[in-house]
Amino acid sequence: MFHFGADYYPEHWPESRWPTDARLMQEAGFTVVRLAEFAWTKIEPSPGKYHFAWLDRAIDLLAAHGISVLLGTPTASPPAWLMNQDETLFRVQRDGRRHSYGNRRGYCPNHPDYHAHSRRIVTVLAEHYAGNENVIGWQIDNEFGDPCYCEICRRAFHEFLKEKYQTLDELNTRWGTDFWSHIYTDWAQIPLPMEVISASDPSLELDFKRFASQSYVRFQQLQIDILREKSPGKPITHNFMEFSYDQINYFDLARSLDFVALDSYPRGFWSPKLAPNPAHIALDLDAARGLKQKNFWMMEQQSGPSGAHYVGETPRPGEIRLWAYQSIAHGADAILFFRWRTCRFGVEQYWHGILDHAGLPNRRYEEVKRMGSELKLLAEIAGSKPQAQTAILVSPDSRFAFHIQPNNAAFNYKQHVRDIYAPLHRRHVTVDILSESADFSAYRLLFAPALYVLPQALAEKLKQFVAQGGTLVLTPRSGVKDEHNLVVDAPLPGLLTELVGAVVEEYDSPAPDMQNHLEFSLPGLTAQPSALGWRDILRPATARVIACYGRDYYAGKPAIVLNQYGQGQVLYIGTFSDETLYEALTDWLLTLSNVSPVLPVSSSIEVTQRGDFYFLLNHSAQTETVQLPRKMFNLLTTQPVETLALAAHEVAILKSV
Amino acid sequence: MFHFGADYYPEHWPESRWPTDARLMQEAGFTVVRLAEFAWTKIEPSPGKYHFAWLDRAIDLLAAHGISVLLGTPTASPPAWLMNQDETLFRVQRDGRRHSYGNRRGYCPNHPDYHAHSRRIVTVLAEHYAGNENVIGWQIDNEFGDPCYCEICRRAFHEFLKEKYQTLDELNTRWGTDFWSHIYTDWAQIPLPMEVISASDPSLELDFKRFASQSYVRFQQLQIDILREKSPGKPITHNFMEFSYDQINYFDLARSLDFVALDSYPRGFWSPKLAPNPAHIALDLDAARGLKQKNFWMMEQQSGPSGAHYVGETPRPGEIRLWAYQSIAHGADAILFFRWRTCRFGVEQYWHGILDHAGLPNRRYEEVKRMGSELKLLAEIAGSKPQAQTAILVSPDSRFAFHIQPNNAAFNYKQHVRDIYAPLHRRHVTVDILSESADFSAYRLLFAPALYVLPQALAEKLKQFVAQGGTLVLTPRSGVKDEHNLVVDAPLPGLLTELVGAVVEEYDSPAPDMQNHLEFSLPGLTAQPSALGWRDILRPATARVIACYGRDYYAGKPAIVLNQYGQGQVLYIGTFSDETLYEALTDWLLTLSNVSPVLPVSSSIEVTQRGDFYFLLNHSAQTETVQLPRKMFNLLTTQPVETLALAAHEVAILKSV
Amino acid sequence: MFHFGADYYPEHWPESRWPTDARLMQEAGFTVVRLAEFAWTKIEPSPGKYHFAWLDRAIDLLAAHGISVLLGTPTASPPAWLMNQDETLFRVQRDGRRHSYGNRRGYCPNHPDYHAHSRRIVTVLAEHYAGNENVIGWQIDNEFGDPCYCEICRRAFHEFLKEKYQTLDELNTRWGTDFWSHIYTDWAQIPLPMEVISASDPSLELDFKRFASQSYVRFQQLQIDILREKSPGKPITHNFMEFSYDQINYFDLARSLDFVALDSYPRGFWSPKLAPNPAHIALDLDAARGLKQKNFWMMEQQSGPSGAHYVGETPRPGEIRLWAYQSIAHGADAILFFRWRTCRFGVEQYWHGILDHAGLPNRRYEEVKRMGSELKLLAEIAGSKPQAQTAILVSPDSRFAFHIQPNNAAFNYKQHVRDIYAPLHRRHVTVDILSESADFSAYRLLFAPALYVLPQALAEKLKQFVAQGGTLVLTPRSGVKDEHNLVVDAPLPGLLTELVGAVVEEYDSPAPDMQNHLEFSLPGLTAQPSALGWRDILRPATARVIACYGRDYYAGKPAIVLNQYGQGQVLYIGTFSDETLYEALTDWLLTLSNVSPVLPVSSSIEVTQRGDFYFLLNHSAQTETVQLPRKMFNLLTTQPVETLALAAHEVAILKSV
Repeated sequence: MFHFGADYYPEHWPESRWPTDARLMQEAGFTVVRLAEFAWTKIEPSPGKYHFAWLDRAIDLLAAHGISVLLGTPTASPPAWLMNQDETLFRVQRDGRRHSYGNRRGYCPNHPDYHAHSRRIVTVLAEHYAGNENVIGWQIDNEFGDPCYCEICRRAFHEFLKEKYQTLDELNTRWGTDFWSHIYTDWAQIPLPMEVISASDPSLELDFKRFASQSYVRFQQLQIDILREKSPGKPITHNFMEFSYDQINYFDLARSLDFVALDSYPRGFWSPKLAPNPAHIALDLDAARGLKQKNFWMMEQQSGPSGAHYVGETPRPGEIRLWAYQSIAHGADAILFFRWRTCRFGVEQYWHGILDHAGLPNRRYEEVKRMGSELKLLAEIAGSKPQAQTAILVSPDSRFAFHIQPNNAAFNYKQHVRDIYAPLHRRHVTVDILSESADFSAYRLLFAPALYVLPQALAEKLKQFVAQGGTLVLTPRSGVKDEHNLVVDAPLPGLLTELVGAVVEEYDSPAPDMQNHLEFSLPGLTAQPSALGWRDILRPATARVIACYGRDYYAGKPAIVLNQYGQGQVLYIGTFSDETLYEALTDWLLTLSNVSPVLPVSSSIEVTQRGDFYFLLNHSAQTETVQLPRKMFNLLTTQPVETLALAAHEVAILKSV
Repeated sequence: MFHFGADYYPEHWPESRWPTDARLMQEAGFTVVRLAEFAWTKIEPSPGKYHFAWLDRAIDLLAAHGISVLLGTPTASPPAWLMNQDETLFRVQRDGRRHSYGNRRGYCPNHPDYHAHSRRIVTVLAEHYAGNENVIGWQIDNEFGDPCYCEICRRAFHEFLKEKYQTLDELNTRWGTDFWSHIYTDWAQIPLPMEVISASDPSLELDFKRFASQSYVRFQQLQIDILREKSPGKPITHNFMEFSYDQINYFDLARSLDFVALDSYPRGFWSPKLAPNPAHIALDLDAARGLKQKNFWMMEQQSGPSGAHYVGETPRPGEIRLWAYQSIAHGADAILFFRWRTCRFGVEQYWHGILDHAGLPNRRYEEVKRMGSELKLLAEIAGSKPQAQTAILVSPDSRFAFHIQPNNAAFNYKQHVRDIYAPLHRRHVTVDILSESADFSAYRLLFAPALYVLPQALAEKLKQFVAQGGTLVLTPRSGVKDEHNLVVDAPLPGLLTELVGAVVEEYDSPAPDMQNHLEFSLPGLTAQPSALGWRDILRPATARVIACYGRDYYAGKPAIVLNQYGQGQVLYIGTFSDETLYEALTDWLLTLSNVSPVLPVSSSIEVTQRGDFYFLLNHSAQTETVQLPRKMFNLLTTQPVETLALAAHEVAILKSV
Repeated sequence: MFHFGADYYPEHWPESRWPTDARLMQEAGFTVVRLAEFAWTKIEPSPGKYHFAWLDRAIDLLAAHGISVLLGTPTASPPAWLMNQDETLFRVQRDGRRHSYGNRRGYCPNHPDYHAHSRRIVTVLAEHYAGNENVIGWQIDNEFGDPCYCEICRRAFHEFLKEKYQTLDELNTRWGTDFWSHIYTDWAQIPLPMEVISASDPSLELDFKRFASQSYVRFQQLQIDILREKSPGKPITHNFMEFSYDQINYFDLARSLDFVALDSYPRGFWSPKLAPNPAHIALDLDAARGLKQKNFWMMEQQSGPSGAHYVGETPRPGEIRLWAYQSIAHGADAILFFRWRTCRFGVEQYWHGILDHAGLPNRRYEEVKRMGSELKLLAEIAGSKPQAQTAILVSPDSRFAFHIQPNNAAFNYKQHVRDIYAPLHRRHVTVDILSESADFSAYRLLFAPALYVLPQALAEKLKQFVAQGGTLVLTPRSGVKDEHNLVVDAPLPGLLTELVGAVVEEYDSPAPDMQNHLEFSLPGLTAQPSALGWRDILRPATARVIACYGRDYYAGKPAIVLNQYGQGQVLYIGTFSDETLYEALTDWLLTLSNVSPVLPVSSSIEVTQRGDFYFLLNHSAQTETVQLPRKMFNLLTTQPVETLALAAHEVAILKSV
C-alpha cells in the first residue's frame, strides 16, 4: 500500500478544530501525517519542562481515524529561550553577518551547546514515542542547509583538515600554497573563505565545502544514533530538497538513513519563471531515488501556491494529482502533501496547503480526495521499482568545484544535467542518477557530465565500464582536476586521455556574443546545435571525429570524438551546449548503446515504467491521444485499453494484460 | 495673503552678501523664508555655548526688507562634537551597519542622550526667539526618516510591545508564534527584523514598523511640547515628503502639528525617469492636504535641478511657476522654494536653488519674481479650500504590511493609488485623501484600495457609509488581515464579505508572462484591460457580475462584482491592473455615484477648484485652447474670458463673473 | 636591445623541471624574467629565518641560459604567520568589512607594523642581491591598490589633514563645513567616507582620495629608499595597471621610480565584453609612457586566457605577438609575458600563461618564440621614442572628483578620453598623455577634457599655452571646482571664462531618454552627433558659435564655441557626446592646429612612429593592403617595400630608405 497524507501542524489550530481535520483527512483517504517538525518550544516551553500531552492527544485522535504519524525532530527551529542564551549559537554567513532569531535553521551546525540541546530534545522525544505504535518513523530536522562561517566552525574546519592531511606539509603540498606563498605554518592560520576576500585558493574552498557538508552529515548522525538506540525499529529519514540544491553532498547525507524523502514544488515559490517542466520534475525524482538507489517518500508534495513575501502561482486543476502520480511513477512509495491547511500566521503565511486559511474543502481538497480513493486500486504497485539501462553520474565534488570556479558564465551544472536528461525523458527512457560509488555494470549507457574533479579510482572504474562493453559519454571540463582541486599535470582530459583517444589541444572560453555551432560528420545528422560557454579544440589519437566547429579560428577542428576502448566506446563532447545538442545525438546514442524506451509510444506525454506497471502522464493543457503497442489493462478504469485519450493533466496507469 | 519665499541659508555665505540677497528677495515679492534648520553647530559651536548674534542679524536684515522667518529646529543635523561622544548615538541600519558622521539624520530616534541634547537646543532656540515677532513659526527637524535597529531601539520596541500587549501570552497569541514555535517566554528574547534573517514573522514586522513610526512621532512630540511651552502662539509644522514616502504613518505624524508642510520635487533628483506626471504631483498635494484635512504649506518647492552624486534635469521654462500654482490649486497657502541659492559646498552641492552657485539673477529667478508680483492679484484666494465629493482611503498599516509581503511583484501600493487617482484627475474631479479615522459621510464615492489590514471598526464604518447611500470601490487583497497581520479565519474578503456580496473562491498570483484580461458585461464597455499581479476568482452571492476573466482556467469566472447594500453599492475589483482599468470604469462610476467635475471643460489641461476659484494649468509643452462653459473673470489678466489659449506651462486663475 | 621574457615562478614547480623551463626560454629568445614577487613566505618561512638558496639556484640556472632577472619585492602577499599576528594588519573596505587572509593586497597601507615587516624583508632582499649582477632591477610590490578605511588610516588621515590645513578653521573654510553645520572642532571628529553614510561632503571625499593615493605612494617610497641605499645602481619600477584604473594618482606614484612598467590584458579577464579595441590598448600604452614622459617596460603582456572564477577568451592566433609589437610601437623597451606557465593551483589557476598547465610547447609558445627571433632584427629601435604634436591632459584630481559626483550617469571620464583619443589614433596621429605639471609648449594641439577641478596655476598655464599659439580643446564641466572641490563663486567655466570667451548661461543634465543632437555651423560639417549626458547652454562674449543644439527648449542655442586668444584658439565643447562628435571634428581640428599624421596612409591599420621607425599593425581578422607614400625598408623581411599586404594580426616595421 502507498502511504498517503500531508504535513500537519495541529499546534497552529485550536484543539476544537482537530476532529474536523481528522475527519476530512480520513475522507480523503489519508493514512499518514508528519507532525511536530517545528514544535520544539511547544514540547519544551521552558528549559527541561516537557509538554507531550497535546501531541499525544493529536496522535491518538489521528490514530482513531486510521492515520499513522511520522514525527519530525524539531531541531530546525529551536526555542527563543534557547537561542537567546548565547549569540554564538547563531550561524554566520559568508558575508560575515551573524543570524539572529526570527527565522529557522539559524543555528551553527558545529556548536557543541547546540549539539547538547539537540541530543536532549531528540532523546526525550525518542523515549516518549518509542513505544507508540502509531508513530511509524522519524524525520530528522528539515532541509539541512547553509554553511556557517563562525569561529567555532573555523576551529572545526582546522580539525577536519588535521584529520584529513595529518601534517601541514601535506596540506601545503596538496593545496599548492606556494601560490602567492600562502603557506600555512600553523593550523590556526587557515582562514575561512569569507566573501570579503573575494577569491580564495580553490583547494581551500573545496575542502571548506566538503567540511560544511560533513557538518550537517555529522549533526544528522548525532540524531540518528539516539533514535536508533532509544526508538529502535522505527525507520529514519530526512527531507531533501530538489536537484537544484547542492550545498551538501546528498549522497553522504542519505547514507545512514533508512530511506530518502523529497520536497517537491514544481511551480516553485514566486519568481518570474516558466511553466513547470515535466523533465525537470522527473530529474528531481530520479535524483532522489538515486541517493540510495531505492524508492523514496515524497515528504512535501506541492498542494497550493507557495510563497513568503510573494505568493506563487496556483497549481492548475489536475496538477497536484498529476505531480503526485509522477512522484509514484519515479519511485515514491508515499505521498505527503505540504501542507494540510494554510497557516494564518508566521513566515510561511502564504505557503499554501491543500486547504486555504479558512479551512473549508475546496477544489484542491477534492483533487487530493479523488487520488486518495484511486490509490486503493493501485496497492499492488507499491514496492516495485523503476529499472534503468541508462544512468547519469553526478559528482558533488565537481559541483562544489564549479561553485568556486564556474569556468564560463554560460555554464551551469544543473542545467547541463537537465539538458542531457530531457531528451532521454522525452524518449521514455528510464534513467538512474548515480554517485561515483555506484555499481556501473548494470548499465549500457552512462553519462558522466563535466567530471571536473576526478579521483584516480573513478577514472579506473570508468575505463573498466567501457572496457566491458559500456557506452560512456563525457562532456567538457572532465578530468581537469585532481581531488584536491589542482589542475592535473598532463594534457586534458588528464586521466581520461587514453580512454577518450584524444587530447584537448587548446580551449576557448568565449564571451556570449562569440557564437559558434557544430557540424556533424554522422550520416543524416544535419542539425547544427550551438557551441556555448566552452570549446575544447580536440586532437584525436585513436578516436574518430563526430563533429567539428563551424566558425572562428578553430572552424573545422574536432569538437566531438568517439573512441573504441575494449568492448565499449566513449563519446567525448568538447563543448557545452543546450538541449538541442543532446536532442540531436540521443537517438543515435540509444541505438549505439542498445537502449530501449519503456514503451514504444509516439507521444509528447511522459511514460515511465515501475515494475510491471506503466504510468502515462499528460503534463500539457490539451488532450493527448496515445496508441499503445498492445492491449493493456488500465488500473484506474479497471478496463482493458489499446488507444487512450488522456485529458489535460490526466494520468493513466497500465499493466500488461 | 499667500506666503511666498524660499529656504535660505545665510550661514553658507559671507555676511557681506546678505544685503544683496535680501534686496533680490524683496524684489521678487518674498514675504517669508525658512532659516536655521541645519545650523545647530553654528548656534552651539561647543557644548553649551550659544551664538545667536549671526542669526539675529540675518532675521533683522530680512525684517527690514519685509520678510518674516520660519525657524527650523536643527535636530536633523547634530554637531560633530556631539555625535563624536558616543557611537551609540548613531542609527543602525536593517543590514546591521551603524551610521557614522558625515550625512544627516544619522541619529537613533530613541536614544535618551540624543533626546536630552535635542531638548536643550530646542529650549534655548524657543526661549531666544519666543519674543521675536518676525519669527512666525517653527519647523521641527527635517523629513523624518528611516528606522533604527540598534539595541536601544530593541529595548524600546520591547517597551512598546509590553504597553500594547500587556502579557507575553497575549503577544504570542496575537502574533501566532506557534508557527515554527517562535514562542517568546521573555520580552528580551524578541528580535528586531534585521535583514540577515531575511523573512521574519509578519506580525512582528508590522509591529516593528508601527514602533519605528511612533519613534519619530514621539521625538517630534518632545519638541512640540517644548515649543508650545516656551514659544507660545507660533504655529508648528514639519516638512513631509511626497506620497511615495511611506516609512512613517504620516497621519500620526501630522496629528499634533498646527499645519502640514510638504517638500515637492516633480522632476525628482537624477535617475532615469519619465517626464513629470501632473496627476502624480496632484496626488502628492492632495495627500498632503489630507493629512490634517486642511490647507498646507509648500515648504520646499523645486526651483532648480536637484541632485547629489548626479545632477537632475533642469526645470523647463515655466515649470517652476506652474508647479507652484499647482500647489496653491490643491490647497497650499504658502510657497517656499528650495533653495534660495545653490550651495558651493556640501553633500547637496548640486541640489540647485533659484540662483545658481554664482548668485546672479537668472531665468529661474525671473520666473519666480513674475509669480511674486502676480500673487498680489490673488490675495482673496488665500484660506479657501478644495471641496471634494470623492475620496481615496489610504491605510498606512496596509502599506506597511505590503512592504513585508508585497504578495505579487507586479503590485505596488503607491502605483495602485496613482492608477485610481489619475483618471479622476483627468476628469477634473476633486479628490480627498483620507485616513480611516476621517468622516466618510461627506463623500458620494469612496475608493478604499487594497485594504489589506482591516480593523473591525473600519469594516463597520464602511458598511455604514454604503448603507447610507455611498458608493464604495474595493480592490484585491482587501479584508485579508486583522490588525495583527494574521490572515482572517474566514473566506475572503473576510469582514467585508457581506458587504461585497461575494467570496473569493480561489486566487492566483501569476508570473508576469501569464497574461490575462477582463471582459465587461456593462453595455458599451468594450475595453479589455489587463489583469495584472493578482486575480481573485469570485463567487457572487448577492452581487452581480461586472467583468469576467478572458483567459486561463478561470476564463469566464467573475473578476468584478457590484453589490447593492442598503442605500448604496459596493464595487469589488478582484484583480490588480493599471490605469487602463480605472480609465475604463471611471465615467461609469462617476455617473453611478452622481459625482461631477469642478468645471465641464473638455481638455487635457488640469482643472481644479478651490473655494470659488478655478485653476487651469497647462502641463504640456504645447498651447492648449479651452472653451469655458460660461464667461468668467481671469484674475491674472484682470479680464473677463470665455475662450482661453493657454501657452505651454501657462496658468489661468478664474472666478465666476 | 629589447628585453624579452616572462614573469616566472619557479617556486610553483619541482626543481627538476627548472632546466626544461630555462632551455625552452632560451630557445624562445628570452633575456629577462621577473622573479619572486609573491614569494615572501618562501623566502622567510618563519619570522626572521631567511631561505635564499632556492632563489639563488634559480637565478644561477637562468644566468647560465643567458637570462637576467628583475626581482619583485614580495610585499603584496605577506606570510600567513605575519598577518595572523594581528587582525588590524588587514585592510578595511568602504563597506566596513575587514579583510582576512586568503587573497593578496589585504594589508593596511598605513599600518606601522606592516611597514616594519616590509622594511625588514626588503632590506634583506636588497642586501642579499645587491652584488648579484644577474639581478638587473627591482619591482616594488604589485599593482598597488584599494583604499583602507580602518582606524589607523583614520588617524593617518587626520595627520594628513593637519599637515595640509594646519588649523581646523582653515579646513572648515576650505571644505565649506557650514553646510549641514558639519563643523569640526577637533581633528579626531573627522570621519572616513564609509559606504554606510551614502554621500559625504565632496571636499572630505576628495581629500580622502588624495590621502589614500598618497598612502601607497609613501609605502612605495619607504621601499625605494631602502633599495637605493642597499642595492645601489639597480633601477626600480612598479607594475601599473591600465588607464581604466584610477584609485591612485599614477603621476605621483611614478615620480620616484626609474621607469614605469605596465600590465596589459587586451582581452581582459572574463566578463561579457566586446572584442579588444586597438585604440583603447594604444591609449593604455600612451598613458603609461606619459606617466614619466619616457619609455616604459611591459611587465605583464597577456599571453593566454585570463581569469579566476571565470576563464577569459583565448588570444586569437597572432594576437599575442601583435599586442607585444603594439607595446613596442608605443614606447615599450621590454616585453615580459604574464606568465611563463599556467599555475596548477591558487587563486589564479585560470590566469593562463604562455604554456598551459601541462607545460608543453604549444601554439602560443611558438608565437612568442617567433617574436623572440625577430627582435634580433630590431635592436636599433630600442631607446627611440615617439614624438607627439598632440597631447591630452589627464587630471587625477578631476577623475577623483567625478568618482564622488559623476554629474550625469551617461558620463564616464575614461570613456570620454577614449572618445577623444580614438579618432586621433585612427588618423595615425601620435598622442602624449600629460599631467598638469608637464611642459605644454612642445604641442600644437592640446585636449584638456572635463577639467573639473582646476587650480589657479593650471588655468594660467593654459592661458599661456593658447596665448603663445596653441590650440586648446575644453569639454563640459571644466573650471567648475577649485582644488578643494568647491564650486567656484563665478559663472562657469570659472577661471577659464576669459579664455573661452563665453559663459555657461544654464545647464541641463538630462535623463537618457531626453535625446538631442548638434548642428554645426562649419562648412561641410553635416554630421549631427548626439548630445549625451550633459548640456551647457552657452552665451558667447568674444567667441564664435561652432555648433548649436537641435532640440528641446535650448534648440538653436550655442553648444560649441571657438575663441581666439592671443596667438592661439580655444574650442569649448559644451556637451558630452561619444566618438561620433570627435570623429566629426578631428580633421578640422588637425588642420586648424597644423598637426600631421606620422605617415599619410589611408588604411584601417594602426600606424605609429618611434624615432625613425614606423610600425604598421593589422588588428583586424582580414588581410589589409597598404600603399606606402614612398619606398621604405621592412626590418622583418629585410626587403624594400612600397605596397604591403598585411595578413590578419600581422605586423610590419619599416624605416625610410
